[in-house]
Amino acid sequence: MDETIILRPIGYVRTNVPDEEIRHRRRDIRADIVFDEDLEPALDGIEDFSHLFVLFWMDRVPPEETQRRKVHPRGRTDLPLVGVLATRGRSRPNPIGLAVVELLGRSGPVLRVRGLDAYDGTPVLDVKPYDPYDVVPDPRVPAWWTQLHG
Amino acid sequence: MDETIILRPIGYVRTNVPDEEIRHRRRDIRADIVFDEDLEPALDGIEDFSHLFVLFWMDRVPPEETQRRKVHPRGRTDLPLVGVLATRGRSRPNPIGLAVVELLGRSGPVLRVRGLDAYDGTPVLDVKPYDPYDVVPDPRVPAWWTQLHG
Repeated sequence: MDETIILRPIGYVRTNVPDEEIRHRRRDIRADIVFDEDLEPALDGIEDFSHLFVLFWMDRVPPEETQRRKVHPRGRTDLPLVGVLATRGRSRPNPIGLAVVELLGRSGPVLRVRGLDAYDGTPVLDVKPYDPYDVVPDPRVPAWWTQLHG
Repeated sequence: MDETIILRPIGYVRTNVPDEEIRHRRRDIRADIVFDEDLEPALDGIEDFSHLFVLFWMDRVPPEETQRRKVHPRGRTDLPLVGVLATRGRSRPNPIGLAVVELLGRSGPVLRVRGLDAYDGTPVLDVKPYDPYDVVPDPRVPAWWTQLHG
């Protein structure tokens, strides 16, 4: 487990939505993903998918957050203390973000998407097409999740 | 875009299914994810979710594959040549794998899952709970996808 892995961003998020708004109203916000120009051919055909996964690097997470093991979801102390890997929060050993987004359009090396909860300037690590195998019809979630989002 | 990002694995995949079988029969195979022991508390509560995302590092991808920009899906030349980011294949700039898996059980720092298409010994970067917001009822996919999987 001493191996280290080195990644380079393939692009970044561009949005004029303020950080605070992204935190609280992610579902319908629009953003661009601006890819390195030499990667433009790597996007060909992606517009035939309606949805994508976006993997991004949460570069504003303070290093000490990566050492945390338990959190209250969204910091809400009325919800149980759970392991960081049982949440989608930013406190986690490798602060990689994952979002399912709707692909609204493409213009060369730029994808316009809806539903990306990443701040302006966030490095993007990968995008992947979402397909029918990714659909879990009725996933089970804990009571705290429903309390938070229901 | 000159920034580099350094990650460390949080665990690894343990399976006795041979690589060749994983490539062709991923949906029902079972595997363990063995986490670093100091991360055991970070898993608490994860067993209340039925499904997870697993992010893993495809460490057997030859470096030249990360330079490719176009591929025939699964190497099938009867399917169109598309950008690597329009596929889920291993040829991509940052060879991070993503799988939606069913969580079958937990034993301390070990999760047993179904549907993980990663080879024995593969480094794991992150796991995240799958929730109802990740469900896209009827995602649109290109004709080649249906030809490959339909």
